[in-house]
Amino acid sequence: MFDKMNGIGAHEVIIETPDHTASLGTLPPKRIEDVLWTFRDRILDLKKDRRFKYILIFKNHGEAAGASLEHAHSQLIALPMLPIYLAEEIEGAKQYFIYKERCVFCDIIRQEIDASVRVVAENEDFITLAPYAPRFPFETWILPKQHESAFENSSSHMFENLAKALKSLLTKADRVLDNPPYNLVIHTSPVQEPNNDHYHWHIEFMPKLTKTAGFEWGTGFYINPTPPEEAAKFLRDASMEEANVVPAG
Amino acid sequence: MFDKMNGIGAHEVIIETPDHTASLGTLPPKRIEDVLWTFRDRILDLKKDRRFKYILIFKNHGEAAGASLEHAHSQLIALPMLPIYLAEEIEGAKQYFIYKERCVFCDIIRQEIDASVRVVAENEDFITLAPYAPRFPFETWILPKQHESAFENSSSHMFENLAKALKSLLTKADRVLDNPPYNLVIHTSPVQEPNNDHYHWHIEFMPKLTKTAGFEWGTGFYINPTPPEEAAKFLRDASMEEANVVPAG
Repeated sequence: MFDKMNGIGAHEVIIETPDHTASLGTLPPKRIEDVLWTFRDRILDLKKDRRFKYILIFKNHGEAAGASLEHAHSQLIALPMLPIYLAEEIEGAKQYFIYKERCVFCDIIRQEIDASVRVVAENEDFITLAPYAPRFPFETWILPKQHESAFENSSSHMFENLAKALKSLLTKADRVLDNPPYNLVIHTSPVQEPNNDHYHWHIEFMPKLTKTAGFEWGTGFYINPTPPEEAAKFLRDASMEEANVVPAG
Repeated sequence: MFDKMNGIGAHEVIIETPDHTASLGTLPPKRIEDVLWTFRDRILDLKKDRRFKYILIFKNHGEAAGASLEHAHSQLIALPMLPIYLAEEIEGAKQYFIYKERCVFCDIIRQEIDASVRVVAENEDFITLAPYAPRFPFETWILPKQHESAFENSSSHMFENLAKALKSLLTKADRVLDNPPYNLVIHTSPVQEPNNDHYHWHIEFMPKLTKTAGFEWGTGFYINPTPPEEAAKFLRDASMEEANVVPAG
């Protein structure tokens, strides 16, 4: 019962810019696109190692979001198992597909475009929206509008449009929330299943404006005082002009 | 799919002391015991409302742990459904019971007393230990040594000994970690199932010394740099003399 596991994995830090005072959101879209291509290249390289089951890419910005380095960076962690949160999300999507024969994320996108109240922005390839049941105030997702199960399968015009969608979201969040600490996580398919009908890769952006406390740790439920419709409206209406932000520590 | 739920529940704040500068850990054991009796009385009263499925008691101490009031207090939230974390924990315990015909927590207590390296303290009724796979540095659990599924079933000498165990843990944590922010959560059986063979109520004490970041939000796995054996040794060896602590905001 208490056997120790042998560790196997990879942990890489992706430095997003040589400029110590810049942050991902203040880079020009072309430089953000370079960062996305780097994510893709590192995923494709690490996928050659068959021991890895999942490659997680995430970003901690600001001390309150757990960033321990001030210089703008993202992180990649390759894991020998599927993380439990992903396993649960993928299983839910699988069950929905069995029931409806449609991808749940494709259905959400259709429904949100129709309702429009939670949509923050849209371009040729991506939709940015406040999810129906966000855990955190201003939690925002970016999803490819066409079904695509893995981040690394994206075409070049998709990386170009994702960079634009990210630039827009991060600039607007800086305007509305005054350079908030945030976590950004890419949710994508497991390494061995990069093409499937049921899972739809996306980015989850979570500003850290509230603290996770006893209620959340005791239940797995989240108290969120900000309705997603309001958060989406604030972000939708925010100016794209860059504020004079001081990078978070 | 997007129907709204009607809210039903109760939320109570238990003020632990009239003294604004005191904290639960600095109260005399007898006053801590009074707080525990209050928890029990409120649970017994709220259980009369058949719409409640679970009664959660927790405590946020210090701003970093999400406390929004400075004055020492605990909280009670009565919920119309079983929280997902509890449902998972209870289901795991049920599966273990089906397999072994023993309570998994009783087995853990036996094994930890035997191994002794993760035990922090013990009295007639309670054991205080660092769990084998803690999510957080210095995460510590207090469990009744005899099988008991619900907090509110505890006998009077148990409340007396629980107050002593809590006093000891909180005093030692203050000494070792310098008045850390923390969350404390009582894990107990669902309202409708207060007597069962498989679930064993306990308290989880989680000092907030590290930040939950992108890796944790993306995986459900926790990075913890402090081995439980080391945390247990620090707490075991700490003096019970009270430090001159300044209450956290």
